[in-house]
Amino acid sequence: MGRTSDAKEKILTAAHSLIEQRGYSALGVAEICKTAGVPKGSFYYFFESKEALALAVIDEHWAAEQRGWNRILGSDAEPLERLRRLFEATEASQRAGQESCGAISGCLFGNLSLEMSNQTEAIRERLQEIFEAQAEMVAKVIAEAQERGEVNVPDTRAAAQSVVAQLEGQVLFAKLYNNTSPLGTLWGNCLALLGATVPARV
Amino acid sequence: MGRTSDAKEKILTAAHSLIEQRGYSALGVAEICKTAGVPKGSFYYFFESKEALALAVIDEHWAAEQRGWNRILGSDAEPLERLRRLFEATEASQRAGQESCGAISGCLFGNLSLEMSNQTEAIRERLQEIFEAQAEMVAKVIAEAQERGEVNVPDTRAAAQSVVAQLEGQVLFAKLYNNTSPLGTLWGNCLALLGATVPARV
Repeated sequence: MGRTSDAKEKILTAAHSLIEQRGYSALGVAEICKTAGVPKGSFYYFFESKEALALAVIDEHWAAEQRGWNRILGSDAEPLERLRRLFEATEASQRAGQESCGAISGCLFGNLSLEMSNQTEAIRERLQEIFEAQAEMVAKVIAEAQERGEVNVPDTRAAAQSVVAQLEGQVLFAKLYNNTSPLGTLWGNCLALLGATVPARV
Repeated sequence: MGRTSDAKEKILTAAHSLIEQRGYSALGVAEICKTAGVPKGSFYYFFESKEALALAVIDEHWAAEQRGWNRILGSDAEPLERLRRLFEATEASQRAGQESCGAISGCLFGNLSLEMSNQTEAIRERLQEIFEAQAEMVAKVIAEAQERGEVNVPDTRAAAQSVVAQLEGQVLFAKLYNNTSPLGTLWGNCLALLGATVPARV
Protein backbone atom coordinates (compact mmCIF):
# COMPACT_ATOMS: atom_id res chain seq x y z
CA MET A 1 0.00 0.00 0.00
CA GLY A 2 2.80 2.41 0.92
CA ARG A 3 4.42 1.74 -2.45
CA THR A 4 1.28 2.22 -4.58
CA SER A 5 0.34 5.51 -2.88
CA ASP A 6 3.86 6.60 -3.49
CA ALA A 7 3.57 5.81 -7.23
CA LYS A 8 0.33 7.80 -7.50
CA GLU A 9 1.93 10.77 -5.75
CA LYS A 10 4.97 10.54 -8.05
CA ILE A 11 2.74 10.58 -11.14
CA LEU A 12 0.79 13.60 -9.82
CA THR A 13 3.97 15.49 -8.96
CA ALA A 14 5.57 14.78 -12.36
CA ALA A 15 2.37 15.68 -14.24
CA HIS A 16 1.94 18.91 -12.26
CA SER A 17 5.45 20.02 -13.07
CA LEU A 18 5.27 19.01 -16.75
CA ILE A 19 1.85 20.64 -17.29
CA GLU A 20 3.12 23.87 -15.67
CA GLN A 21 6.17 23.89 -17.93
CA ARG A 22 4.67 22.74 -21.22
CA GLY A 23 0.88 22.57 -21.03
CA TYR A 24 -1.35 19.54 -21.45
CA SER A 25 -1.40 18.73 -25.17
CA ALA A 26 2.37 18.46 -25.49
CA LEU A 27 2.52 15.62 -22.95
CA GLY A 28 2.10 11.90 -23.35
CA VAL A 29 1.45 9.30 -20.68
CA ALA A 30 4.79 7.59 -21.45
CA GLU A 31 6.72 10.80 -20.75
CA ILE A 32 4.83 11.46 -17.53
CA CYS A 33 5.61 7.92 -16.30
CA LYS A 34 9.26 8.22 -17.31
CA THR A 35 9.58 11.52 -15.41
CA ALA A 36 7.77 10.03 -12.42
CA GLY A 37 9.99 6.93 -12.53
CA VAL A 38 7.03 4.53 -12.49
CA PRO A 39 6.09 1.79 -15.00
CA LYS A 40 3.39 2.76 -17.51
CA GLY A 41 1.14 -0.01 -16.19
CA SER A 42 0.87 1.89 -12.89
CA PHE A 43 -0.61 4.88 -14.64
CA TYR A 44 -3.81 3.15 -15.67
CA TYR A 45 -4.12 1.57 -12.25
CA PHE A 46 -4.53 5.05 -10.77
CA PHE A 47 -5.95 7.16 -13.63
CA GLU A 48 -8.30 6.05 -16.36
CA SER A 49 -6.97 8.63 -18.83
CA LYS A 50 -4.66 11.60 -19.28
CA GLU A 51 -7.72 13.82 -18.81
CA ALA A 52 -8.48 12.19 -15.44
CA LEU A 53 -4.89 12.87 -14.39
CA ALA A 54 -5.17 16.52 -15.50
CA LEU A 55 -8.33 16.92 -13.41
CA ALA A 56 -6.50 15.44 -10.40
CA VAL A 57 -3.59 17.86 -10.95
CA ILE A 58 -6.03 20.79 -11.19
CA ASP A 59 -7.84 19.72 -8.00
CA GLU A 60 -4.61 19.28 -6.06
CA HIS A 61 -3.30 22.66 -7.23
CA TRP A 62 -6.54 24.43 -6.36
CA ALA A 63 -6.75 22.77 -2.92
CA ALA A 64 -3.34 24.25 -2.08
CA GLU A 65 -4.03 27.64 -3.67
CA GLN A 66 -7.44 27.88 -2.03
CA ARG A 67 -5.89 27.30 1.40
CA GLY A 68 -3.54 30.23 0.68
CA TRP A 69 -6.37 32.47 -0.55
CA ASN A 70 -8.53 31.59 2.47
CA ARG A 71 -5.69 32.34 4.87
CA ILE A 72 -5.10 35.77 3.27
CA LEU A 73 -8.65 36.82 2.40
CA GLY A 74 -10.15 35.44 5.63
CA SER A 75 -7.63 37.10 7.93
CA ASP A 76 -8.38 39.82 10.50
CA ALA A 77 -6.68 42.53 8.42
CA GLU A 78 -8.72 45.35 6.87
CA PRO A 79 -10.44 44.28 3.63
CA LEU A 80 -8.31 46.27 1.15
CA GLU A 81 -5.16 45.22 2.99
CA ARG A 82 -6.20 41.58 2.45
CA LEU A 83 -6.48 42.19 -1.29
CA ARG A 84 -3.06 43.84 -1.30
CA ARG A 85 -1.59 40.78 0.42
CA LEU A 86 -3.20 38.49 -2.17
CA PHE A 87 -1.36 40.33 -4.97
CA GLU A 88 1.89 40.25 -3.01
CA ALA A 89 1.49 36.50 -2.50
CA THR A 90 0.81 36.04 -6.23
CA GLU A 91 3.96 37.96 -7.11
CA ALA A 92 6.02 36.05 -4.52
CA SER A 93 4.77 32.72 -5.82
CA GLN A 94 5.59 33.57 -9.47
CA ARG A 95 9.03 34.83 -8.39
CA ALA A 96 9.69 31.63 -6.43
CA GLY A 97 8.73 29.56 -9.50
CA GLN A 98 11.05 31.64 -11.67
CA GLU A 99 13.92 31.19 -9.22
CA SER A 100 13.45 27.44 -9.00
CA CYS A 101 13.02 26.64 -12.70
CA GLY A 102 14.31 29.69 -14.59
CA ALA A 103 10.97 30.66 -16.14
CA ILE A 104 7.70 32.09 -14.90
CA SER A 105 5.10 29.40 -15.49
CA GLY A 106 2.10 31.67 -14.92
CA CYS A 107 -1.26 30.58 -13.53
CA LEU A 108 -2.00 26.88 -14.11
CA PHE A 109 -5.73 27.65 -14.38
CA GLY A 110 -5.25 30.53 -16.83
CA ASN A 111 -2.84 28.45 -18.92
CA LEU A 112 -5.28 25.52 -19.13
CA SER A 113 -8.28 27.82 -19.73
CA LEU A 114 -6.69 29.16 -22.90
CA GLU A 115 -5.23 25.83 -23.98
CA MET A 116 -8.07 23.45 -23.10
CA SER A 117 -11.43 25.26 -22.75
CA ASN A 118 -12.59 24.29 -26.21
CA GLN A 119 -11.27 20.74 -26.10
CA THR A 120 -12.57 18.95 -23.05
CA GLU A 121 -15.80 19.88 -21.32
CA ALA A 122 -14.74 18.21 -18.06
CA ILE A 123 -11.67 20.45 -17.77
CA ARG A 124 -13.62 23.53 -18.88
CA GLU A 125 -16.24 22.94 -16.17
CA ARG A 126 -13.65 22.38 -13.45
CA LEU A 127 -11.82 25.59 -14.40
CA GLN A 128 -15.11 27.52 -14.45
CA GLU A 129 -15.83 26.33 -10.90
CA ILE A 130 -12.38 27.43 -9.72
CA PHE A 131 -12.59 30.91 -11.25
CA GLU A 132 -16.12 31.28 -9.84
CA ALA A 133 -14.82 30.34 -6.39
CA GLN A 134 -11.99 32.88 -6.76
CA ALA A 135 -14.41 35.62 -7.79
CA GLU A 136 -16.73 34.79 -4.88
CA MET A 137 -13.85 35.00 -2.41
CA VAL A 138 -12.73 38.37 -3.77
CA ALA A 139 -16.34 39.63 -3.97
CA LYS A 140 -16.85 38.95 -0.27
CA VAL A 141 -13.86 41.13 0.62
CA ILE A 142 -14.99 43.88 -1.79
CA ALA A 143 -18.44 43.82 -0.15
CA GLU A 144 -16.80 44.36 3.25
CA ALA A 145 -14.77 47.29 1.88
CA GLN A 146 -17.94 48.69 0.32
CA GLU A 147 -19.77 48.54 3.67
CA ARG A 148 -16.93 50.55 5.20
CA GLY A 149 -17.25 53.14 2.41
CA GLU A 150 -13.73 52.43 1.14
CA VAL A 151 -14.71 51.40 -2.40
CA ASN A 152 -17.57 52.22 -4.71
CA VAL A 153 -18.81 49.60 -7.18
CA PRO A 154 -22.31 48.91 -8.48
CA ASP A 155 -21.84 45.11 -8.47
CA THR A 156 -19.32 43.45 -6.15
CA ARG A 157 -19.33 40.15 -8.07
CA ALA A 158 -18.64 41.80 -11.46
CA ALA A 159 -15.96 43.96 -9.82
CA ALA A 160 -14.34 40.85 -8.35
CA GLN A 161 -14.28 39.19 -11.77
CA SER A 162 -12.59 42.30 -13.20
CA VAL A 163 -9.97 42.22 -10.44
CA VAL A 164 -9.25 38.55 -11.21
CA ALA A 165 -9.21 39.33 -14.97
CA GLN A 166 -6.60 42.05 -14.38
CA LEU A 167 -4.59 39.55 -12.34
CA GLU A 168 -4.76 36.91 -15.10
CA GLY A 169 -3.82 39.47 -17.76
CA GLN A 170 -0.79 40.71 -15.83
CA VAL A 171 0.29 37.13 -15.05
CA LEU A 172 0.11 36.50 -18.82
CA PHE A 173 2.54 39.39 -19.36
CA ALA A 174 4.77 38.21 -16.50
CA LYS A 175 5.01 34.81 -18.22
CA LEU A 176 5.49 36.28 -21.70
CA TYR A 177 8.31 38.60 -20.54
CA ASN A 178 9.59 36.15 -17.88
CA ASN A 179 9.54 39.11 -15.53
CA THR A 180 7.45 39.68 -12.42
CA SER A 181 7.31 43.47 -12.77
CA PRO A 182 3.84 43.57 -14.45
CA LEU A 183 2.51 42.12 -11.17
CA GLY A 184 3.63 45.27 -9.35
CA THR A 185 0.69 47.11 -10.96
CA LEU A 186 -1.99 44.84 -9.49
CA TRP A 187 -2.61 46.74 -6.27
CA GLY A 188 -2.93 50.18 -7.84
CA ASN A 189 -5.11 48.80 -10.64
CA CYS A 190 -7.34 47.02 -8.14
CA LEU A 191 -7.91 50.29 -6.26
CA ALA A 192 -8.72 52.02 -9.56
CA LEU A 193 -11.13 49.26 -10.66
CA LEU A 194 -12.92 49.45 -7.31
CA GLY A 195 -13.21 53.25 -7.29
CA ALA A 196 -11.32 53.21 -4.00
CA THR A 197 -11.37 56.40 -2.00
CA VAL A 198 -7.59 56.23 -1.45
CA PRO A 199 -5.63 57.60 -4.45
CA ALA A 200 -5.37 54.98 -7.21
CA ARG A 201 -2.30 54.41 -9.35
CA VAL A 202 -2.14 52.57 -12.71
CA MET B 1 3.18 29.37 -59.73
CA GLY B 2 -0.54 29.95 -59.24
CA ARG B 3 -0.85 26.43 -57.88
CA THR B 4 2.08 26.62 -55.46
CA SER B 5 0.97 29.99 -54.00
CA ASP B 6 -2.42 28.43 -53.59
CA ALA B 7 -0.96 25.49 -51.63
CA LYS B 8 0.93 27.85 -49.31
CA GLU B 9 -2.23 29.87 -48.67
CA LYS B 10 -4.20 26.67 -47.99
CA ILE B 11 -1.60 25.52 -45.43
CA LEU B 12 -1.67 28.92 -43.70
CA THR B 13 -5.47 29.02 -43.60
CA ALA B 14 -5.73 25.47 -42.24
CA ALA B 15 -3.00 26.08 -39.64
CA HIS B 16 -4.59 29.37 -38.53
CA SER B 17 -7.93 27.71 -37.97
CA LEU B 18 -6.47 24.63 -36.25
CA ILE B 19 -4.20 26.69 -33.95
CA GLU B 20 -7.16 28.91 -32.97
CA GLN B 21 -9.26 25.85 -32.16
CA ARG B 22 -6.71 23.60 -30.48
CA GLY B 23 -3.44 25.44 -29.89
CA TYR B 24 -0.01 24.65 -31.29
CA SER B 25 1.24 21.57 -29.41
CA ALA B 26 -1.77 19.43 -30.23
CA LEU B 27 -1.15 19.73 -33.98
CA GLY B 28 1.05 17.73 -36.31
CA VAL B 29 2.23 18.62 -39.79
CA ALA B 30 0.35 15.63 -41.24
CA GLU B 31 -2.97 16.87 -39.82
CA ILE B 32 -2.38 20.41 -41.04
CA CYS B 33 -1.67 19.11 -44.58
CA LYS B 34 -4.70 16.82 -44.49
CA THR B 35 -6.95 19.73 -43.45
CA ALA B 36 -5.37 21.95 -46.10
CA GLY B 37 -5.78 19.23 -48.74
CA VAL B 38 -2.14 19.43 -49.84
CA PRO B 39 0.51 16.67 -49.92
CA LYS B 40 2.92 16.61 -46.98
CA GLY B 41 5.86 17.21 -49.33
CA SER B 42 4.46 20.68 -50.11
CA PHE B 43 4.70 21.64 -46.48
CA TYR B 44 8.49 21.52 -46.32
CA TYR B 45 8.73 23.31 -49.65
CA PHE B 46 7.10 26.36 -48.02
CA PHE B 47 7.98 26.05 -44.33
CA GLU B 48 11.11 24.63 -42.78
CA SER B 49 9.32 23.55 -39.59
CA LYS B 50 6.05 23.68 -37.70
CA GLU B 51 7.53 26.58 -35.71
CA ALA B 52 8.18 28.53 -38.93
CA LEU B 53 4.56 27.94 -39.92
CA ALA B 54 3.34 29.15 -36.52
CA LEU B 55 5.38 32.34 -36.92
CA ALA B 56 3.84 32.89 -40.36
CA VAL B 57 0.33 32.38 -38.91
CA ILE B 58 1.10 34.86 -36.10
CA ASP B 59 2.43 37.44 -38.57
CA GLU B 60 -0.56 37.11 -40.88
CA HIS B 61 -3.01 37.38 -37.97
CA TRP B 62 -1.23 40.43 -36.54
CA ALA B 63 -1.06 42.15 -39.94
CA ALA B 64 -4.85 41.91 -40.19
CA GLU B 65 -5.50 42.84 -36.57
CA GLN B 66 -3.05 45.74 -36.70
CA ARG B 67 -4.90 47.18 -39.72
CA GLY B 68 -8.11 47.07 -37.67
CA TRP B 69 -6.48 48.65 -34.61
CA ASN B 70 -4.89 51.38 -36.75
CA ARG B 71 -8.20 52.15 -38.41
CA ILE B 72 -9.95 52.48 -35.04
CA LEU B 73 -7.21 54.07 -32.92
CA GLY B 74 -6.00 56.38 -35.70
CA SER B 75 -9.45 57.72 -36.57
CA ASP B 76 -10.64 61.30 -36.12
CA ALA B 77 -12.91 60.40 -33.20
CA GLU B 78 -12.15 61.69 -29.71
CA PRO B 79 -9.46 59.61 -27.95
CA LEU B 80 -11.65 57.86 -25.38
CA GLU B 81 -14.27 57.17 -28.04
CA ARG B 82 -11.56 55.39 -30.07
CA LEU B 83 -10.76 53.15 -27.10
CA ARG B 84 -14.46 52.38 -26.67
CA ARG B 85 -14.67 51.36 -30.33
CA LEU B 86 -11.64 49.09 -29.92
CA PHE B 87 -13.43 47.15 -27.17
CA GLU B 88 -16.62 46.99 -29.23
CA ALA B 89 -14.64 45.62 -32.18
CA THR B 90 -13.00 43.02 -29.89
CA GLU B 91 -16.40 41.91 -28.65
CA ALA B 92 -17.85 41.81 -32.19
CA SER B 93 -14.92 39.76 -33.44
CA GLN B 94 -15.21 37.19 -30.63
CA ARG B 95 -18.97 36.99 -31.18
CA ALA B 96 -18.48 36.44 -34.92
CA GLY B 97 -15.99 33.63 -34.17
CA GLN B 98 -18.46 32.05 -31.78
CA GLU B 99 -21.27 32.23 -34.34
CA SER B 100 -19.14 30.69 -37.10
CA CYS B 101 -17.58 27.82 -35.14
CA GLY B 102 -19.70 27.42 -32.00
CA ALA B 103 -16.95 28.35 -29.55
CA ILE B 104 -15.10 31.53 -28.59
CA SER B 105 -11.48 30.93 -29.56
CA GLY B 106 -10.10 33.93 -27.63
CA CYS B 107 -7.04 35.95 -28.58
CA LEU B 108 -4.55 33.97 -30.70
CA PHE B 109 -1.65 35.93 -29.14
CA GLY B 110 -2.87 35.42 -25.57
CA ASN B 111 -3.48 31.72 -26.21
CA LEU B 112 0.00 31.21 -27.64
CA SER B 113 1.63 33.37 -24.92
CA LEU B 114 0.36 31.03 -22.23
CA GLU B 115 0.91 27.86 -24.24
CA MET B 116 4.26 28.59 -25.90
CA SER B 117 6.20 31.35 -24.07
CA ASN B 118 8.43 28.92 -22.23
CA GLN B 119 8.93 26.56 -25.15
CA THR B 120 10.21 28.44 -28.17
CA GLU B 121 12.15 31.68 -27.92
CA ALA B 122 11.28 32.68 -31.49
CA ILE B 123 7.55 32.58 -30.76
CA ARG B 124 8.02 34.28 -27.38
CA GLU B 125 9.94 37.16 -29.00
CA ARG B 126 7.36 37.62 -31.75
CA LEU B 127 4.51 37.72 -29.24
CA GLN B 128 6.43 40.21 -27.08
CA GLU B 129 6.80 42.50 -30.11
CA ILE B 130 3.09 42.29 -30.86
CA PHE B 131 1.98 43.07 -27.30
CA GLU B 132 4.50 45.92 -27.18
CA ALA B 133 3.06 47.32 -30.41
CA GLN B 134 -0.47 47.04 -28.99
CA ALA B 135 0.55 48.82 -25.77
CA GLU B 136 2.28 51.58 -27.79
CA MET B 137 -0.84 52.12 -29.90
CA VAL B 138 -3.07 52.34 -26.83
CA ALA B 139 -0.54 54.53 -24.96
CA LYS B 140 -0.62 57.08 -27.79
CA VAL B 141 -4.39 57.44 -27.46
CA ILE B 142 -4.17 57.63 -23.66
CA ALA B 143 -1.56 60.42 -24.01
CA GLU B 144 -3.98 62.37 -26.23
CA ALA B 145 -6.78 61.93 -23.69
CA GLN B 146 -4.38 63.00 -20.93
CA GLU B 147 -3.49 66.20 -22.82
CA ARG B 148 -7.20 66.98 -23.02
CA GLY B 149 -7.51 66.47 -19.25
CA GLU B 150 -9.90 63.55 -19.72
CA VAL B 151 -7.80 60.94 -17.92
CA ASN B 152 -5.21 61.04 -15.17
CA VAL B 153 -2.39 58.49 -15.15
CA PRO B 154 1.23 58.85 -14.01
CA ASP B 155 2.60 56.68 -16.84
CA THR B 156 0.71 56.32 -20.13
CA ARG B 157 2.69 53.24 -21.24
CA ALA B 158 2.08 51.34 -17.98
CA ALA B 159 -1.59 52.37 -18.10
CA ALA B 160 -1.83 51.06 -21.68
CA GLN B 161 -0.36 47.72 -20.63
CA SER B 162 -2.93 47.50 -17.83
CA VAL B 163 -5.75 48.22 -20.29
CA VAL B 164 -4.47 45.44 -22.59
CA ALA B 165 -4.04 43.12 -19.55
CA GLN B 166 -7.67 43.72 -18.59
CA LEU B 167 -8.68 42.95 -22.16
CA GLU B 168 -6.68 39.70 -22.22
CA GLY B 169 -8.08 38.67 -18.82
CA GLN B 170 -11.69 39.26 -19.88
CA VAL B 171 -11.10 37.48 -23.21
CA LEU B 172 -9.81 34.53 -21.15
CA PHE B 173 -13.13 34.48 -19.25
CA ALA B 174 -15.12 34.89 -22.49
CA LYS B 175 -13.34 31.80 -23.85
CA LEU B 176 -13.66 29.82 -20.61
CA TYR B 177 -17.42 30.51 -20.34
CA ASN B 178 -17.96 30.57 -24.12
CA ASN B 179 -19.83 33.81 -23.54
CA THR B 180 -19.00 37.32 -24.71
CA SER B 181 -20.58 39.07 -21.71
CA PRO B 182 -17.30 39.54 -19.77
CA LEU B 183 -16.21 41.78 -22.67
CA GLY B 184 -19.04 44.18 -21.85
CA THR B 185 -17.05 45.34 -18.82
CA LEU B 186 -14.01 46.50 -20.81
CA TRP B 187 -15.09 50.07 -21.42
CA GLY B 188 -16.08 50.88 -17.84
CA ASN B 189 -12.96 49.17 -16.51
CA CYS B 190 -10.77 51.09 -18.94
CA LEU B 191 -12.23 54.39 -17.70
CA ALA B 192 -11.62 53.29 -14.11
CA LEU B 193 -8.02 52.21 -14.82
CA LEU B 194 -7.33 55.56 -16.50
CA GLY B 195 -8.86 57.64 -13.71
CA ALA B 196 -11.20 59.12 -16.33
CA THR B 197 -13.10 62.24 -15.37
CA VAL B 198 -16.37 60.78 -16.72
CA PRO B 199 -18.03 58.40 -14.21
CA ALA B 200 -16.41 54.94 -14.30
CA ARG B 201 -18.26 51.68 -13.97
CA VAL B 202 -16.79 48.26 -13.08
